[in-house]
Amino acid sequence: MNSAPPTSNHSNAETVALDREHVFHSWSAQGALNPMVLEGGLGCTVWDNERNEFLDFSSQLVNVNIGHQHPAVIAGIKTQADLMATVAPAHAIHIRGEAARKITAHTPAGMNRVFFTNGGADAIENAIRMARLHTGRDKIISRYRSYHGNTGSAIVATGDWRRIPNEYARAHVHVFGPYQYRSEFWADSPEQESERALHHLERTIQAEGSASIAAILLETIPGTAGVLIPPPGYLAGVRAIADKYGILVILDEVMAGFGRTGDWFAFDAFDITPDLIAFAKGVNSGYIPVGGVVISDEIAATFDERVFPGGLTYSGHPIGAASIVASITAMEDEGIIENAAMIGRDHIGPGLAALAEKHECIGEVRGRGVFWAMELVANRNTREPLSAADMGKLKGALVQRGLLPFIAENRIHVVPPAVVTPEEVARALAIYDEALGAL
Amino acid sequence: MNSAPPTSNHSNAETVALDREHVFHSWSAQGALNPMVLEGGLGCTVWDNERNEFLDFSSQLVNVNIGHQHPAVIAGIKTQADLMATVAPAHAIHIRGEAARKITAHTPAGMNRVFFTNGGADAIENAIRMARLHTGRDKIISRYRSYHGNTGSAIVATGDWRRIPNEYARAHVHVFGPYQYRSEFWADSPEQESERALHHLERTIQAEGSASIAAILLETIPGTAGVLIPPPGYLAGVRAIADKYGILVILDEVMAGFGRTGDWFAFDAFDITPDLIAFAKGVNSGYIPVGGVVISDEIAATFDERVFPGGLTYSGHPIGAASIVASITAMEDEGIIENAAMIGRDHIGPGLAALAEKHECIGEVRGRGVFWAMELVANRNTREPLSAADMGKLKGALVQRGLLPFIAENRIHVVPPAVVTPEEVARALAIYDEALGAL
Ligand SMILES: Cc1ncc(COP(=O)(O)O)c(C=O)c1O
Ligand SMILES: Cc1ncc(COP(=O)(O)O)c(C=O)c1O
Repeated sequence: MNSAPPTSNHSNAETVALDREHVFHSWSAQGALNPMVLEGGLGCTVWDNERNEFLDFSSQLVNVNIGHQHPAVIAGIKTQADLMATVAPAHAIHIRGEAARKITAHTPAGMNRVFFTNGGADAIENAIRMARLHTGRDKIISRYRSYHGNTGSAIVATGDWRRIPNEYARAHVHVFGPYQYRSEFWADSPEQESERALHHLERTIQAEGSASIAAILLETIPGTAGVLIPPPGYLAGVRAIADKYGILVILDEVMAGFGRTGDWFAFDAFDITPDLIAFAKGVNSGYIPVGGVVISDEIAATFDERVFPGGLTYSGHPIGAASIVASITAMEDEGIIENAAMIGRDHIGPGLAALAEKHECIGEVRGRGVFWAMELVANRNTREPLSAADMGKLKGALVQRGLLPFIAENRIHVVPPAVVTPEEVARALAIYDEALGAL
Repeated sequence: MNSAPPTSNHSNAETVALDREHVFHSWSAQGALNPMVLEGGLGCTVWDNERNEFLDFSSQLVNVNIGHQHPAVIAGIKTQADLMATVAPAHAIHIRGEAARKITAHTPAGMNRVFFTNGGADAIENAIRMARLHTGRDKIISRYRSYHGNTGSAIVATGDWRRIPNEYARAHVHVFGPYQYRSEFWADSPEQESERALHHLERTIQAEGSASIAAILLETIPGTAGVLIPPPGYLAGVRAIADKYGILVILDEVMAGFGRTGDWFAFDAFDITPDLIAFAKGVNSGYIPVGGVVISDEIAATFDERVFPGGLTYSGHPIGAASIVASITAMEDEGIIENAAMIGRDHIGPGLAALAEKHECIGEVRGRGVFWAMELVANRNTREPLSAADMGKLKGALVQRGLLPFIAENRIHVVPPAVVTPEEVARALAIYDEALGAL
């Protein structure tokens, strides 16, 4: 499929043995793990030590938007590594300014400043911190169906003055969001789902005390929670409610941003402008750990005279910055965002619709760009989720046929790199078809 | 001083202008910032766009232990970038196993597993999470003089199940630690300081309820708080108290580890073995954002059958792992740890002692390896800290003479890379001498 050399002198068994001896894995019990080996990739293909190839329809953790081993991004990393690999955040380095300029070239007017982090979680941390300090309010409203990252206490463990303006991991309020297929609001239509979800949000704000709420934090399109496309009017309604009560809107674009939806930002397709944008993943496809917050000029101005009490050793890392500059430039030059939009509209969308016609167990398909979910059910009428055992079998069947899937609960997320070709989509659809048929 | 080419086609003014337009900086008010430009470095020297050179006695944020642009680490980064730049944590990749093996080769017996993160803060997050789940207790005791990282709420904002086992950013208790020069315990000797600090710790544990405390979290040698070398018996006493009450010990070696003190880990020089070690910075000198937790076999076993509820997209990043392997290998092969020990013993230690003889304003010097502080005072008897204005002047005088200092409150931290030479130390001492004289 391509001519890259094998990437390791080890057998898969050796790599797994070493891994099991020394590596502690996330979100799992360690005892029974038998991880898949991956040692190389190109575009939408990855392979193990023994040169077994897989079509990567997971984009790993839905982050490799530009595909594996994009030559321009690899080159950007290597060039900066030769110049300067590390610099403290307090100093200025040109490549960091360029990365911020590249990012803000794609944000709405009035959003011109970037605070860099190492990933998505710390982007969210800092967005929350900014919102609280800007408004002087504490509470953050977010959704039950959401994932915003895994941190929670290091600053509170800290003993010096930096702890004091940051004792914040409290005052989190959760609401239900729109999810027509499994409505929490007894709704009959997308419009009703939207309206009722907004009612629920506004009533919660009133009940909590609107003056206590700093921000509404939303994944523009909840990702791991199921690729939940907002129904008509929902995001515009959120913005209107926020404005009514003087509440900020933080959009978490960690998974949805930088091409995943066929737009630069997922919110570009909706009638909403956020006050703060959290990003990571797609900004550089995870080639280097990096993330950040884009800040409205109004919020940034709050910290002109006042110390912003947040930071991290690797904020604005030079190699991370170089990978961002190279990645955004390649996305601009190569029409990668447009490709994602076209793939969603002309290939994945129609393809999944056809599968849903054919397979009883597909309850719903939804998505845009290269960001889709098939929701699998044991029964179309009751919408009872497909069992974990069946999902496990399905996963095995997909891997066996050479497709690396992204499975979440009873769903297959169809999330290839944004550079995916119609031919690769066709191959993947055929594999999904076979594996679903084999169930 | 070396033959590397200039690193940017921009003037310093251009770089600062771009920075001020788009980059939001940590721990500061943004309005008055005028950051120093840095675009390249080699060993202990860094330079700006206009080829002004500085002796880096800050190691940036006390992280560049191996010096700038170590060729073997740069090569390791570039080689892995060519093979595979990104892979999800759930998969196995040989270089990650190797990085974990390299790290655990230098930890005490019975500490064989590594959970990788992106930096120090998330290492602390996960160490705390492990301690709480292993013990079934909530409270974390740490010190007022400490810094453990800037995160605090992303997982609590999250709405899915991953929030529930993680609602932890509460139950933080702080104690005073030993700091003979400014004792909180009216102590007359290091032994008394140690004994009284242990008494204070144990009484706090009893008062909080020992059965409610999961872990004592300590920087082995508090860094940013002042390079506070533990007095005789303190760390052994902490371990004994922890064991008495079934409490775990987490040592934060983010700043102190990997050569900074002239040992692989700072605790190697003291009579204590931790249950969990948090690391970052020196492990790869920050060439790629990375950190992690080394886990005792006993704690790791807790998660054999039970899901560990923590993770992050870039856990065990392949390029980060490659930078760790290259960095630890170079430290082993080139005697870098031994160099740091020798430099502290034969050069920085005696040199700072001589400066303290000469300059009234030096209240105390303390440290080991390449990890030292000069505590500056307006009055040696009252120990009144030198004013912020004078510290500002001193900083200017040092930079003007070509030294990049690390200043914290009323202290100069003398923290060069562990590869520093006796000649470089001599130059730096001469510059400190001149600048202090000019005060
Ligand atoms: C929407 C969203 N926000 C935040 C995060 C956290 O990002 P990270 O894992 O880089 O900390 C994720 C990760 O999956 C995410 O999907
Ligand atoms: C002792 C200690 N722990 C933790 C941290 C946090 O590390 P990071 O900035 O990589 O999150 C630091 C950073 O200075 C530190 O010095």
